Amino acid sequence: MFGNILDRVGETGPLVHNITNYVTVNDVANAILAIGASPVMADDPRDAVEITAICGGINLNIGTLNKRSIKAMHRAGMRASELGHVVLLDPVGAGAFAIRTETAVSLLEKLHLTAVRGNMSEVKTLASGSGTTKGVDADVADAVTDENLETSVEFAKNFAREHKTLLAVTGAIDLVTDGDKCFVIRNGRAEMGRVAGTGCQLSGIATAFLIANPDNRLEALAAAVATMGIAGEIGWSRQLEGDGNATFAKRIIDALYHLDGATLDRMTRCEER
Amino acid sequence: MFGNILDRVGETGPLVHNITNYVTVNDVANAILAIGASPVMADDPRDAVEITAICGGINLNIGTLNKRSIKAMHRAGMRASELGHVVLLDPVGAGAFAIRTETAVSLLEKLHLTAVRGNMSEVKTLASGSGTTKGVDADVADAVTDENLETSVEFAKNFAREHKTLLAVTGAIDLVTDGDKCFVIRNGRAEMGRVAGTGCQLSGIATAFLIANPDNRLEALAAAVATMGIAGEIGWSRQLEGDGNATFAKRIIDALYHLDGATLDRMTRCEER
Amino acid sequence: MFGNILDRVGETGPLVHNITNYVTVNDVANAILAIGASPVMADDPRDAVEITAICGGINLNIGTLNKRSIKAMHRAGMRASELGHVVLLDPVGAGAFAIRTETAVSLLEKLHLTAVRGNMSEVKTLASGSGTTKGVDADVADAVTDENLETSVEFAKNFAREHKTLLAVTGAIDLVTDGDKCFVIRNGRAEMGRVAGTGCQLSGIATAFLIANPDNRLEALAAAVATMGIAGEIGWSRQLEGDGNATFAKRIIDALYHLDGATLDRMTRCEER
Repeated sequence: MFGNILDRVGETGPLVHNITNYVTVNDVANAILAIGASPVMADDPRDAVEITAICGGINLNIGTLNKRSIKAMHRAGMRASELGHVVLLDPVGAGAFAIRTETAVSLLEKLHLTAVRGNMSEVKTLASGSGTTKGVDADVADAVTDENLETSVEFAKNFAREHKTLLAVTGAIDLVTDGDKCFVIRNGRAEMGRVAGTGCQLSGIATAFLIANPDNRLEALAAAVATMGIAGEIGWSRQLEGDGNATFAKRIIDALYHLDGATLDRMTRCEER
Repeated sequence: MFGNILDRVGETGPLVHNITNYVTVNDVANAILAIGASPVMADDPRDAVEITAICGGINLNIGTLNKRSIKAMHRAGMRASELGHVVLLDPVGAGAFAIRTETAVSLLEKLHLTAVRGNMSEVKTLASGSGTTKGVDADVADAVTDENLETSVEFAKNFAREHKTLLAVTGAIDLVTDGDKCFVIRNGRAEMGRVAGTGCQLSGIATAFLIANPDNRLEALAAAVATMGIAGEIGWSRQLEGDGNATFAKRIIDALYHLDGATLDRMTRCEER
Repeated sequence: MFGNILDRVGETGPLVHNITNYVTVNDVANAILAIGASPVMADDPRDAVEITAICGGINLNIGTLNKRSIKAMHRAGMRASELGHVVLLDPVGAGAFAIRTETAVSLLEKLHLTAVRGNMSEVKTLASGSGTTKGVDADVADAVTDENLETSVEFAKNFAREHKTLLAVTGAIDLVTDGDKCFVIRNGRAEMGRVAGTGCQLSGIATAFLIANPDNRLEALAAAVATMGIAGEIGWSRQLEGDGNATFAKRIIDALYHLDGATLDRMTRCEER
């Protein structure tokens, strides 16, 4: 199903510009390298604008903002929008903190976003312009479950339609939609929540997937989400006795490094709604 | 002895705000996640003030300072002090560099610090207002040994009393005191000195321990120190032939992930002075 | 051949100041610790100037520039030059981005560089003042091969002579020259290109090698290049089934941690031109 999409990333080796937080940036770089794409990081406004012009797309992650990086995100995001490049927004912590909420809402309004990738609390914040996220993890009350699946899918579709963007809402159950179709993906491991930055890594590789697959971007975003979840499953299955979250973090990226289209197809648990 | 204190961290899942250096920040985040707490990082002054209000405490680490982060530390630290939150100061490199010495001394004077966690060279610098630290490691002359233990304990107690803060002086022998009682802890491995940021990780998890245990904070700080040392011992015991400091770094966090109260109690080597 | 040079690093434990990018900084710190040296990171201009005075040398890596770090590089670099300390420049991404090209060219002109360490695309950019680097990897057209070896050696020698600096051009085949003699080194693994920051790590440890070996700096730089390549070979040989680039990254540093002079001598593949 998504195998060709993954293979296409390795064949084309897209260059991904990341303006991202300094907490998880190294794992984001190695995750992008693992799938056969190339990362570039730059957050000085002038540097960022120029770099984004050379890259196929930009990954905007608001994890550790400052005046400089906010300016760089706006400028580089505008430039990428003008060039018709992929622009992905990861609204880390939007809802918990005004500066992040404002920045995320402003980027959502001003840029031509190709995709938004966040947890449900963050996406609800973007939808309403304010929120109550506790830190950088989703509120339990916001979790997508089998019970609220229909409402959640409807909410996600509405968001995508209204903001003319692809949307990936990730959690125990992931939703990926263009406003019309919605993929419901059930890959991944709960233990990924104890690893800093698996969401950031997903946003990085999703940008590469979107660049490499311009003709089927909804599927590309869904494929990235399934890929990250499956890397978590494979990584976890390789844990030895005594291995914890730090080794798991490396095993997830290792799994990305070895994942091929056939395995992705075999392991994907995805339905359409 | 300290087992219940560790268990309490996992049960309550405290949210820890970190303004910390970009060198070791990823390991700090994963160490905090490993013990069942949640990390948030933010160093823009406005973001930081707001975030610290949501969190139970703040970990101020002066490892890679700049104008922005110095301002953020002062503002967020003041706000946390007003709210009666935990405020921990890690004076990395104080004594070696004027800007760090000044910042550490200023934070010590202006904030209501719950705890200071540093090596002996850094703490001596804070005590005197200047110092001769060589880089970010303690001077050999400043090491706490069995020979100078009594004087060292007295110095630590005086510091804690004078500055009305808990103090953890870490090295081959660790001292944790409130000015009255002093725990002398002999856990850990010398090889931890070849891993970047085990001290930073300790400051991160210690903040979580202090938040989760408001009624016995001296013991909480001592428990964090013992926990980090024991994680080093367990991590080292799992090293395979050919494993070096980079794998050891991951194994330490893995050990934190698996450590339970009973094991902590069994392995703690601690006496009171 | 280079064994004594490596051993000398461990015996003297040089203190290396790094102004480097936040993407790979943790691995740079652990790589420096692995060889028995000590890293200090600081990028605030005032902090940086003071720190560099205490250290034996400075590693200037332009990976994620901003106004502050550019100023810090110039000031700390000038101070280190005045003091006769080692100054190494790693022109990451020069040629692809104007701000990086300008900064690298300006540092090359104004400082007394002990050494430049980059890929061929970056060095060509420094030589001509402009370039066409694709991202942070060398253009395929710029690769040093057996076919163009003679021309490449000549180019490298000319660069070193003209700019009165040692030069290490790294890739599948590495060249290390002082303008007169040129070492051609064939260690390393192609898979290192899928690990973020092996070049950054090399620049960090090379600075330590240069500080520890003031009387034979050309050999010291060549030894650092061979050491990094051999660490890649050993690290790769320890990969287990399913291990990918993230685990490989750790195994490279682990190999640095265990490497001794005798092994380095035995494994070095180096000829003079």
